[in-house]
Amino acid sequence: MAKADVKVKPQTARGMRDFLPADEIPRAALIQRIKTIFELYGYEPLTSPAVERLDVLQGKTGEEGDQLMFKILKREFDPAALVARSDLDFREIADLGLRYDLTVPLSRIVAMYANELPLPFKRYQIQPVWRAERPQKGRYREFYQCDVDAVGSDSMMADAEIIAIIHDVLRDLAFGRFTILLNNRKILRAMYLYSGMEAGKEETLTIAIDKLDKIGVDGVLAELRKRGITENAISRLLPLLQMTGSNRELLGRLRQLFSATPIGIEGILELEQILEYTESLGVPSEAIRVELFLARGLSYYTGPIFESKMADPGIPSLSGGGRYDKLVGVFLGREIPATGSSVGIERIYDILKQRGLLPNIRSVTQVLVTIYDEQTRAESLVIARELRQVGIKSEVYLSPLKGYKKQLSYADSKTIPVVVLAGPDELAAAKVTIKLMTADPEKPHQVTVARGEMIDAIQSFLG
Amino acid sequence: MAKADVKVKPQTARGMRDFLPADEIPRAALIQRIKTIFELYGYEPLTSPAVERLDVLQGKTGEEGDQLMFKILKREFDPAALVARSDLDFREIADLGLRYDLTVPLSRIVAMYANELPLPFKRYQIQPVWRAERPQKGRYREFYQCDVDAVGSDSMMADAEIIAIIHDVLRDLAFGRFTILLNNRKILRAMYLYSGMEAGKEETLTIAIDKLDKIGVDGVLAELRKRGITENAISRLLPLLQMTGSNRELLGRLRQLFSATPIGIEGILELEQILEYTESLGVPSEAIRVELFLARGLSYYTGPIFESKMADPGIPSLSGGGRYDKLVGVFLGREIPATGSSVGIERIYDILKQRGLLPNIRSVTQVLVTIYDEQTRAESLVIARELRQVGIKSEVYLSPLKGYKKQLSYADSKTIPVVVLAGPDELAAAKVTIKLMTADPEKPHQVTVARGEMIDAIQSFLG
Repeated sequence: MAKADVKVKPQTARGMRDFLPADEIPRAALIQRIKTIFELYGYEPLTSPAVERLDVLQGKTGEEGDQLMFKILKREFDPAALVARSDLDFREIADLGLRYDLTVPLSRIVAMYANELPLPFKRYQIQPVWRAERPQKGRYREFYQCDVDAVGSDSMMADAEIIAIIHDVLRDLAFGRFTILLNNRKILRAMYLYSGMEAGKEETLTIAIDKLDKIGVDGVLAELRKRGITENAISRLLPLLQMTGSNRELLGRLRQLFSATPIGIEGILELEQILEYTESLGVPSEAIRVELFLARGLSYYTGPIFESKMADPGIPSLSGGGRYDKLVGVFLGREIPATGSSVGIERIYDILKQRGLLPNIRSVTQVLVTIYDEQTRAESLVIARELRQVGIKSEVYLSPLKGYKKQLSYADSKTIPVVVLAGPDELAAAKVTIKLMTADPEKPHQVTVARGEMIDAIQSFLG
Repeated sequence: MAKADVKVKPQTARGMRDFLPADEIPRAALIQRIKTIFELYGYEPLTSPAVERLDVLQGKTGEEGDQLMFKILKREFDPAALVARSDLDFREIADLGLRYDLTVPLSRIVAMYANELPLPFKRYQIQPVWRAERPQKGRYREFYQCDVDAVGSDSMMADAEIIAIIHDVLRDLAFGRFTILLNNRKILRAMYLYSGMEAGKEETLTIAIDKLDKIGVDGVLAELRKRGITENAISRLLPLLQMTGSNRELLGRLRQLFSATPIGIEGILELEQILEYTESLGVPSEAIRVELFLARGLSYYTGPIFESKMADPGIPSLSGGGRYDKLVGVFLGREIPATGSSVGIERIYDILKQRGLLPNIRSVTQVLVTIYDEQTRAESLVIARELRQVGIKSEVYLSPLKGYKKQLSYADSKTIPVVVLAGPDELAAAKVTIKLMTADPEKPHQVTVARGEMIDAIQSFLG
């Protein structure tokens, strides 16, 4: 038996959140809107376990991912039997982990079911992931990722479709102007080759130029110098860093610079195709901006990468993704191309909430049926039953009877729009009183109707 | 970068499952039907984190729960710095765990937000829980629980409502006859007191009689003897074990036996109220059976307990729940009454699947728009866009063009009902060809219509 005498402090684990109904109801509605768009493009729902084998999770997303992963103690682990050694490794203690993202599990799944999944496999997945980051405002240790990916197609149509979906999602949520930034890891690789910098410095370059929008050209140059990039390489990079123009102009200039760098030409061609296909798919051309210094952190990207940014300054990216043609191969032994994006539903939800754009629905209930006393209780239960039979979400007040006042204030606190009163007077006259809780000048505040007209009257109040 | 040369075997963690779209689509539909019923009764959605503090989780559900809990390694844990001691405890290594059920997190939440949650708090929660059990058929280490609970009411109306909801769910799924078994922990306690067995043997009695339906009266007696219950106590229990009759008859006889055992009378009265209220709520009286030997495993129950069973033999219970008036108090310091039930959606899903009662929908997509060649590609993308604009779930075939055959077989493998062909001939004539993939004798197999009539024609095929 639970011991009531030992009180345990009720608290969530650090950086984790509960979603009470007032948050969960609009959250679920937001997720449903996004799902609808994913499905309009023929993407299918997929669910995978929270827990994966550590060998599946580790070494896929980069060093930070491995560091921040929550690891699960082996079930048979007996601390008392542990022999301490200086080379003791956590793998002797933990064999499973909580997933860090949804892309690695997807890749594992595609490899595992390669023989039965029709390719291209287009799926969406909206589930939590866990990262042991230092909790801070807007950053949580459990948060939902909302991923949409197409696996099995090396056509830029797949990348264009992902971008069109992201565009539709952000447009549908209608909370501000946004731009989808587009680049290609192949272009970043070409920059590295073109600069002539020494071997092994590719990541240094990528990390530095990814900061361009934060620290500017001078900042990037300083960073590159600090990390030992030669002046010669920097002088070759400078025109690249200073390039401006429309998407077509940028790609045209780049094509000239990269005339002797095939991987760069390949990357440019891919972006040109994406721009063409997204236009056919209905994405306005001004919604996409080629951004040569977009790099994206995760190590598994191999081709086009994309991110979306609000016009308002200070809001971090609302989506991020790209092509990862080699990740499935890690599990399968042969490569299967893939591309996709994550929609930042946590951030989107926070912004919608801050701006008061979420509906203030604290309850799913449409009607509260009050209970006047012991004698009328059965009739109240029957009324609630009848309302449910016609699909009206109805509850009876479950606590011991305390008069109408308490029950009305309960309805009020939950923003339940309609209350039914069925006291002895109403019962004797075969009537019910229906009370509208929200002020609507077009409608009467309260009506008493014959029992047989109750449902119609309530439906007109609700409609 | 992910290294493609080191192949990692793609496998799930032991006892964990993926839900590919062909499973996930009907699963999500099943869950949606259950949610609809919960909401008809005014229960609100709640979501809580997968990870809880070990002090919140442990010691609440019983010894087995503590044993089977997945524990998470401390983030700062450095195995190499560990000093082995014979009294080393896992708490020095792990501080968090994966939730074992949804009732303990609910109780933690009610205590944590006691000042802002309007009571009664009626919530449902459908999320995975984790138990490190030996995996076997129908038993998984990650499985979804689907819980519906009312917190803050000590009225039997709350228990009756939970039972009515369970009844509606099982009736709505319409896969067979079922009975809801009803008992009361207070009656079990009264049996123990009535038998006069020695102190501390209450749990022994409960465990033994819980097996009555499996091992029969003789089996239970043998078990009690084996566990040291005296012949005197057994002879007092025997009439109880052999009691039969309708719900009212059983409770009536019990009332006579327990005339000097107040806790028993209290338990009987509660069940009588539940039977009365469920009748008002529309539950047919034959759907509920008072079952004096139902005990339920979890240690936190304090009052009425209920379970539902299919008429077909061999199918384990499809729901289980009861009243737990002391669990919130463990976190809050003062008691808040609560009752609720879990619906066994994993089992229900398995049964529906075995019986072929799930729809065979392998895809959400309604229309596949084929791509004939490079020249017609843009038009195909435009067609898909137009279909999406009117809400028709449409995909284009994303892989490099391979002729219609491959694309039609893709549509077939995903059971996509309609395919659009827009080749050079169609384009030249401003027409499209629409192909119905499913055999319907009422409808033509294929039509070619003017481009402007495409949407109407597709809608008539789909409708």
